[in-house]
Amino acid sequence: MKASASANSNIALVKYWGKRDAKLFLPHNGSISITLDGLNTHTTCAFSDKLAGDKVDIDGKAVQGAELKQASAFLDIIRGMAKTKARARVVSKNNFPAAAGLASSASGFAALALAAGKAAGLNLDQKQLSLLARRGSGSACRSIYGGFVEWQKGSKSDGSDSHAIQLAKPTHWPEIRVIAAITSRQAKKIKSRAGMAQTVSTSPFYPAWKATVEQDLDGMRQAVMAKNFRMLGQIAEHNCLKMFGTMITTKPAILYWSPKSVEILHAVMGWREEGLECYFTCDAGPQVKVLCLARDEKETSQRLLALQDIEIIVSRPGGDAHTVSRHLF
Amino acid sequence: MKASASANSNIALVKYWGKRDAKLFLPHNGSISITLDGLNTHTTCAFSDKLAGDKVDIDGKAVQGAELKQASAFLDIIRGMAKTKARARVVSKNNFPAAAGLASSASGFAALALAAGKAAGLNLDQKQLSLLARRGSGSACRSIYGGFVEWQKGSKSDGSDSHAIQLAKPTHWPEIRVIAAITSRQAKKIKSRAGMAQTVSTSPFYPAWKATVEQDLDGMRQAVMAKNFRMLGQIAEHNCLKMFGTMITTKPAILYWSPKSVEILHAVMGWREEGLECYFTCDAGPQVKVLCLARDEKETSQRLLALQDIEIIVSRPGGDAHTVSRHLF
Repeated sequence: MKASASANSNIALVKYWGKRDAKLFLPHNGSISITLDGLNTHTTCAFSDKLAGDKVDIDGKAVQGAELKQASAFLDIIRGMAKTKARARVVSKNNFPAAAGLASSASGFAALALAAGKAAGLNLDQKQLSLLARRGSGSACRSIYGGFVEWQKGSKSDGSDSHAIQLAKPTHWPEIRVIAAITSRQAKKIKSRAGMAQTVSTSPFYPAWKATVEQDLDGMRQAVMAKNFRMLGQIAEHNCLKMFGTMITTKPAILYWSPKSVEILHAVMGWREEGLECYFTCDAGPQVKVLCLARDEKETSQRLLALQDIEIIVSRPGGDAHTVSRHLF
Repeated sequence: MKASASANSNIALVKYWGKRDAKLFLPHNGSISITLDGLNTHTTCAFSDKLAGDKVDIDGKAVQGAELKQASAFLDIIRGMAKTKARARVVSKNNFPAAAGLASSASGFAALALAAGKAAGLNLDQKQLSLLARRGSGSACRSIYGGFVEWQKGSKSDGSDSHAIQLAKPTHWPEIRVIAAITSRQAKKIKSRAGMAQTVSTSPFYPAWKATVEQDLDGMRQAVMAKNFRMLGQIAEHNCLKMFGTMITTKPAILYWSPKSVEILHAVMGWREEGLECYFTCDAGPQVKVLCLARDEKETSQRLLALQDIEIIVSRPGGDAHTVSRHLF
């Protein structure tokens, strides 16, 4: 059986940073994201008894080594659920640069969970899909839903209560915009996975990160529900800077910002002082995402492009991840 | 009476960040610096009964407003000690850009303490000069000495035990180099003083900063005594990043790095991976100071200059602050 699916990337407004269980992708803290329509992974998966091993293509390139092992381990979970030993042929395409801090692993594993789940004949609901996607990459559990999404960290050791829920549909706040400013198409040197583990074990600030995330989550839920953009922006920016504060104090230090990232951070803070209401957030990479409202989308986009040597992608609230097609052989 | 004095700037290897007493400049934590010969303030001070008020020139410009008030308050302390009401004429010159994170207030108040103290007829020893300089600007208490200097935070509420001592003379480790990379001659937007106070009261990471400084101080003293450059560099870099981690998590956020600063940080980390042993540290401004040994001074300097749009000043271990001349009317 063969199925195709599509999932959007997401950007955390309250970040996921640090695992309590590295194998099951169980986080130390909950997180809240906004799903990024327009930053999309489209994946086709077909299981076959004739294949000797899994074959995975991402953006036209055959995946190998550790990355292939990771994909196969994820497919093993699905094979276990479907009671099959068939190997899979996976073809995946991102419409944005992979592995550069635009959360391609989030949309990637969400799309793979959907496509492979369907192709294996499983009939999973969204909670089950979120639990499954989490096993591929933590933040992927959020990309199953559109709109505003919370990953509830859960407390069980088997991870069965660690999945995302939808806080608000995309239609709840259609005016919100995320402008992804792409400063580099190079893959980052330190993958989030390795970075997180180093931070948890060596940053002297990590305990304070953990101790203050709960209040960020409370505030962010309120901001989303009340559509209070200032509150959302201030919490998102501060939470992002806290994550970077734990990263740069990791041993050895992790500094994902490039000179261009810092130029954008200063620009955003300066524009805000001038009265243009926008806020930044960054993930584990050099890209910067700028939050604004529909009324300021044009002005903010133009100012970002005027900084030169960056590309932008504007994301407007869209739909959930979904199965695009399903083919029976 | 009129006297001239000269004092060098210093760069903290374990930073001073946060005051327990804002009026007396008493710090939350001790700090260790290396004195920067070549980054110099030269100050002449003359007291006269004929002046209606203090007149202070820095780099050819008459100081006014809050800055003049600050200088006058400092001169009041000296007038109190000397039992005089005479006003002062102060002329001060920096051979490096002021107020841009090269610690001009450190060398400035150290030179003023020396010059004004002498001009007022006081005969202060180095401990007394350090206590006095601290009242002008905290880090100035370290600029009284050359070489490696520790500011002992002290515990008394009157500040009488909060002064610097010399850990090692400049001759102890003549091979050490500090290359100041000047990325901007613009004055910084947020003065260290305001930044510190905001950090102490709003950064969720400040308690962890305070809790871990003592181990940095212990390690740095050992590194200096044993002339262990790797240890010195690693602690200095980590401690600097911890300070920046508390700054960026301050509300509102403080980000002293410019795009150029971040370019240099990445360059230094990259050069080190390639085998060129150098480390960075930054203060509250966009400049970056690169630590290396004499054997790598030329290579490191050339690589820094190749980054373009920066100026460098190489500092080699020199002498203590000293009175240059003393004139009787």
